[in-house]
Amino acid sequence: MVSKNQIKLIKSLSQKKFRNKHKLFVVEGIKGIEEFLKSDIELFSLFSSTNSFGVSEDKWTELDEGSLKKISFLSNPQGGLAIFKIPELEKKISAGLILALDGVRDPGNLGTIIRLCDWYGIEDLVCSNDTVDCFNPKVVQASMGSLARVNVRYLDLQQFMKDHQELPVYGTLLEGQNIYSEELPENGIIVMGNEANGISEEIKALVNKKLNIPQFGKIQKTESLNVATATAIVLSEFKRRSITEK
Amino acid sequence: MVSKNQIKLIKSLSQKKFRNKHKLFVVEGIKGIEEFLKSDIELFSLFSSTNSFGVSEDKWTELDEGSLKKISFLSNPQGGLAIFKIPELEKKISAGLILALDGVRDPGNLGTIIRLCDWYGIEDLVCSNDTVDCFNPKVVQASMGSLARVNVRYLDLQQFMKDHQELPVYGTLLEGQNIYSEELPENGIIVMGNEANGISEEIKALVNKKLNIPQFGKIQKTESLNVATATAIVLSEFKRRSITEK
Repeated sequence: MVSKNQIKLIKSLSQKKFRNKHKLFVVEGIKGIEEFLKSDIELFSLFSSTNSFGVSEDKWTELDEGSLKKISFLSNPQGGLAIFKIPELEKKISAGLILALDGVRDPGNLGTIIRLCDWYGIEDLVCSNDTVDCFNPKVVQASMGSLARVNVRYLDLQQFMKDHQELPVYGTLLEGQNIYSEELPENGIIVMGNEANGISEEIKALVNKKLNIPQFGKIQKTESLNVATATAIVLSEFKRRSITEK
Repeated sequence: MVSKNQIKLIKSLSQKKFRNKHKLFVVEGIKGIEEFLKSDIELFSLFSSTNSFGVSEDKWTELDEGSLKKISFLSNPQGGLAIFKIPELEKKISAGLILALDGVRDPGNLGTIIRLCDWYGIEDLVCSNDTVDCFNPKVVQASMGSLARVNVRYLDLQQFMKDHQELPVYGTLLEGQNIYSEELPENGIIVMGNEANGISEEIKALVNKKLNIPQFGKIQKTESLNVATATAIVLSEFKRRSITEK
């Protein structure tokens, strides 16, 4: 049985202010829950029809599919809902490529980008404070468990770049150099901008390596790619070099 | 003024069977309408507050923003709604790279893929008959006008490949060769599969060049990328070669 207080807590976690207050977030679906259980992220509470996950009994609440529907954020609950503790990340960022997001607002885009970071082995994703929260249920869902393996930090992006002046800062801009023929390093910061406005003026001023993804069709120069697909192309290019240019 | 019959027609165009019956589809938003007006696709009817588009008066219906809301498929209508005629495409496919979609179901994914075709100069997109309709309002919206420049055909994909046996057929599969080190030609068919199940067995049997996008992180081998982001990476790789390997 799920108590009224539990329902209230779960519902509140759709909002960022309550996620931050309780330091908790929700993961739904068998696959997603399994990925988080495998990680260092700590389980707070699990609601499912069977404890096939093998979590300790005191953290598990048995719940049939009908009752699951009452607490789920999805129209079709997918086998379970778990609450995890928001991890405390170390201040120190690992070496290698760092992806920085400047005001990405769409939960689906952020989820896809987290998945791309996981695929391409980018351990650190830093986000401007106005980027959508990675513990938003829609982002967690779209990231399909990859959030368990990528460290996402929210911070003042301008300050972060000033604190890491030893690293080159790459950004895709209309006036940039062809990404396919530029030299691309194994260490550095790659900035991707907001869906409608691209990289903000303050951050653009700190980009010292301007890149451009060339167009091949009849499309106009002023057009742009969706931020998640552009991120896919940019990460693919950076990582490709590490295996083909050795 | 918009008549009851016009409203009925527009509403019906949210459904594929009525789009096929009337051979009409809807485009919303100033930018999208402008892109289609610039193309060879024929305007049937335009509804907007001013005729800033310069279309012939007999095809224009003046409509304030409030009335636009009544006919729009969007929660926030964006300056106008136009009905265009579904173009009749020539049977003949142009030379170059052809992208083939095998059962892509999500309108947002198809819209993003059409946009990628436009960006990378892929003129012909062929889709299995169970791929989502490109004139679905959500696809038109997500393609952001690129649909005006890409020829999308629905057909029996298996038959299409049998009819084009002179072309190599590329597909991304777990057991494929590293895409970054394989030779990639300027002519050929690239197949991308369904969101959940990938490329179907019948089509997989016709793929004679198997490719794989390498993983770099701690992610498991069984994971996969979203079809739109995988398409971005594959098209980027094919087209990159045409400018850097000359």
